[in-house]
Amino acid sequence: MSSAERQLHLNLFILDTGHHEASWRLPESDPLAHIDLAYHQNLARIAEAAAFDSVFLADAPALWGDVGQRPSGRLEPILLLAALAGATSRIGLIATASTSYNDPYNLARRFNSLDHLSGGRAGWNIVTTAGDAAARNFGLEAQPAHAERYERAAEFLEVSARLWDSWQDDAVVADKERGVHALAERVHPIEYAGRFFRVEGALNVPRSPQGHPLLVQAGSSESGKDFAARWAEAVFTAQLTLAEGQAFYADVKRRAAAFGRDPEHVKILPGIVPVIGDTEAEARELEAELDRLIRPEFAQRQLAGLLGLSPEQLPLDQQLPADLPEEELIEGAKSRYTLIVELARREQLTARQLIARLGGGRGHRTFAGTAEQVADTIEEWFRHGAADGFNIMPAVLPSGLEVFAERVVPILRERGLFRTEYTGRTLREHYGLPRPANQFVTA
Amino acid sequence: MSSAERQLHLNLFILDTGHHEASWRLPESDPLAHIDLAYHQNLARIAEAAAFDSVFLADAPALWGDVGQRPSGRLEPILLLAALAGATSRIGLIATASTSYNDPYNLARRFNSLDHLSGGRAGWNIVTTAGDAAARNFGLEAQPAHAERYERAAEFLEVSARLWDSWQDDAVVADKERGVHALAERVHPIEYAGRFFRVEGALNVPRSPQGHPLLVQAGSSESGKDFAARWAEAVFTAQLTLAEGQAFYADVKRRAAAFGRDPEHVKILPGIVPVIGDTEAEARELEAELDRLIRPEFAQRQLAGLLGLSPEQLPLDQQLPADLPEEELIEGAKSRYTLIVELARREQLTARQLIARLGGGRGHRTFAGTAEQVADTIEEWFRHGAADGFNIMPAVLPSGLEVFAERVVPILRERGLFRTEYTGRTLREHYGLPRPANQFVTA
Repeated sequence: MSSAERQLHLNLFILDTGHHEASWRLPESDPLAHIDLAYHQNLARIAEAAAFDSVFLADAPALWGDVGQRPSGRLEPILLLAALAGATSRIGLIATASTSYNDPYNLARRFNSLDHLSGGRAGWNIVTTAGDAAARNFGLEAQPAHAERYERAAEFLEVSARLWDSWQDDAVVADKERGVHALAERVHPIEYAGRFFRVEGALNVPRSPQGHPLLVQAGSSESGKDFAARWAEAVFTAQLTLAEGQAFYADVKRRAAAFGRDPEHVKILPGIVPVIGDTEAEARELEAELDRLIRPEFAQRQLAGLLGLSPEQLPLDQQLPADLPEEELIEGAKSRYTLIVELARREQLTARQLIARLGGGRGHRTFAGTAEQVADTIEEWFRHGAADGFNIMPAVLPSGLEVFAERVVPILRERGLFRTEYTGRTLREHYGLPRPANQFVTA
Repeated sequence: MSSAERQLHLNLFILDTGHHEASWRLPESDPLAHIDLAYHQNLARIAEAAAFDSVFLADAPALWGDVGQRPSGRLEPILLLAALAGATSRIGLIATASTSYNDPYNLARRFNSLDHLSGGRAGWNIVTTAGDAAARNFGLEAQPAHAERYERAAEFLEVSARLWDSWQDDAVVADKERGVHALAERVHPIEYAGRFFRVEGALNVPRSPQGHPLLVQAGSSESGKDFAARWAEAVFTAQLTLAEGQAFYADVKRRAAAFGRDPEHVKILPGIVPVIGDTEAEARELEAELDRLIRPEFAQRQLAGLLGLSPEQLPLDQQLPADLPEEELIEGAKSRYTLIVELARREQLTARQLIARLGGGRGHRTFAGTAEQVADTIEEWFRHGAADGFNIMPAVLPSGLEVFAERVVPILRERGLFRTEYTGRTLREHYGLPRPANQFVTA
């Protein structure tokens, strides 16, 4: 392998016992894994031993869905990653947090602190949080409109970026002789006043090893793609076909260039739910076994809710109703909605069949096959303009991660596509991204 | 020692390189300790090896004071404690968080998560956060009035308590056979609507090992004492003399009884800044060495700010001006204000002398002496109705903690006052407090 050869990036998306909604029902699964620190430490260590770029946790500040369906409720992800920081030394730690239901001063500080605690391994997956359930935990009747959520997110990032820069890297001089710890003239109140936020600053922590956390984004609506192009350094995305993946990839890179950014500095990572067997048939049987464990009445309620229907309007053995709303009218997860409706229409799936397709990855690409076949599809997308890497979402955890690390990663290495060991210290170094300059420092 | 004998409780208050403001200037001190995980892991492990009940971190969501004076800016404490959870197994983990500048859904969840991550070792030091600097980081011009902050705090606790109880302990059934993870009828939306908050709930994490975090409070104003009596299970307090300590102790216990609570279930822990030497003279010389390292112009500005004066109104070699405002007019840390003014008046201190007295503990009791003398004063307060334990605030860290653990703790054990090893698993068990019942479960 040439050292100049482009390398792919692998992120582990941790979701309790696995991304398949029925994975917790397998004999091997610990149904309390989602609230167990040792379980997560083990996953992070396996991913780190395989030299993954990062681990990632999703989040929303609300309990939603049916608590019967799968492990519900999650530990607050920034905290969980702080606990993992001490159990690991190299792997990146990416937490989801909402710009709609946080204050920028507190949240910017938490990510700064995670970056300090982890020695420069923090990442923030920025979400605006769709759904009324979250809004009703924060004094609102219903979620703010999609456009308003994105306007707030933009301002939130402006404020956060200033707070992260409010201490110059050289502010702490620690001059014991003179008795001066830091120089006040290198610490900058941000004096921000906007539509959503007024923040005097400065932040109450010095600048962190990475300057600020790696910024990640996963929205795929028009506003989401523009937001990603403006801010994101890595993009997690659900893409079902190579052609769709290529179109999305080209679209986001083009938008980033239009913002004056280097398109290489936005890494695109489609999600993949690998189900790996010794043979393709064995992989498919494992997938079918998981699908048989889905309780359709839970999944029916969930899918109906996502489509804005009652469960009665979604008979399990019929195709979706013809008169579903247009994406423009959806105030929730717009792009996920469209992806699911298009999948059902394209393949003429009944609700039951659609539920099986979604049960494994909630709209992400599932792929059942041998380790060689999984490596093939990863390489194909990577070499053909659809991916800079992958968001690995094992159907079952930890076993699906173990199999991926033991069987797929070595193949990717043989092909010169993936590192054999870490070469950088920080998350941004793993992704091949530069450390941000400080906006308060003029050359 | 009889097993029935009343035992004292010890909390380690961690503050960067120590509670003396000039401690960072000592040759032994790491001036970047405040942002270093390994440093804090070491402190927590020393305290755990000595079987301390807990470690504690103060906090405010603002940068205040002079960044030259001492290490400024702190890692967000709940995150730091999450990182310490994995490095320890028994010691309690108490973080400060503000009811004025958080949302109850997010904060209740973070403490629930910390309790899960640590196996039942989380504690919350509830503060309302005095000062305009914090207010201006959250869209306000100035801090809300003292009374309003406490009204909000009361409602914040009501909401939090409901959220912590919103999952019954038996909600998760994890029935793999039937495919039912949790029972919806055992998860309760809280449907709270008050003056400050409207929260639908339920929380998005199952109930935690302790039910909810240990509740700690440190306000000593009238509102603060009532709040502590209503909610607190442990109270950190600054008391300079035995007589004041006894009066405070009796007052809070009486108020707790008036709320229908068992006074034994409110543990009072005065702060003490021990400076320990082989002889009393050696201890006093260590203290004097630290005081000589204080830069008076920093301390003068800080004291003037606390008293509502300009630095020019506070000449270093004169006593405090006669016409200071009454406590009622102070919207900040009322009781700290009064404590400082009374100390200065009682001992007729100049500003410079007062600064030296405060430099070590910001109004907490400093005590320079031998290990035997420190143990004597602890025992005296403990046996004479002024303390259920102590908030240990070493002037210099880690050395002050090491000396306390090596020399004072064995004396306390010989006298039958302090445990030789942990007997409980959770923080509340260390403090001898019962696990809270769930308000949504009727017998």
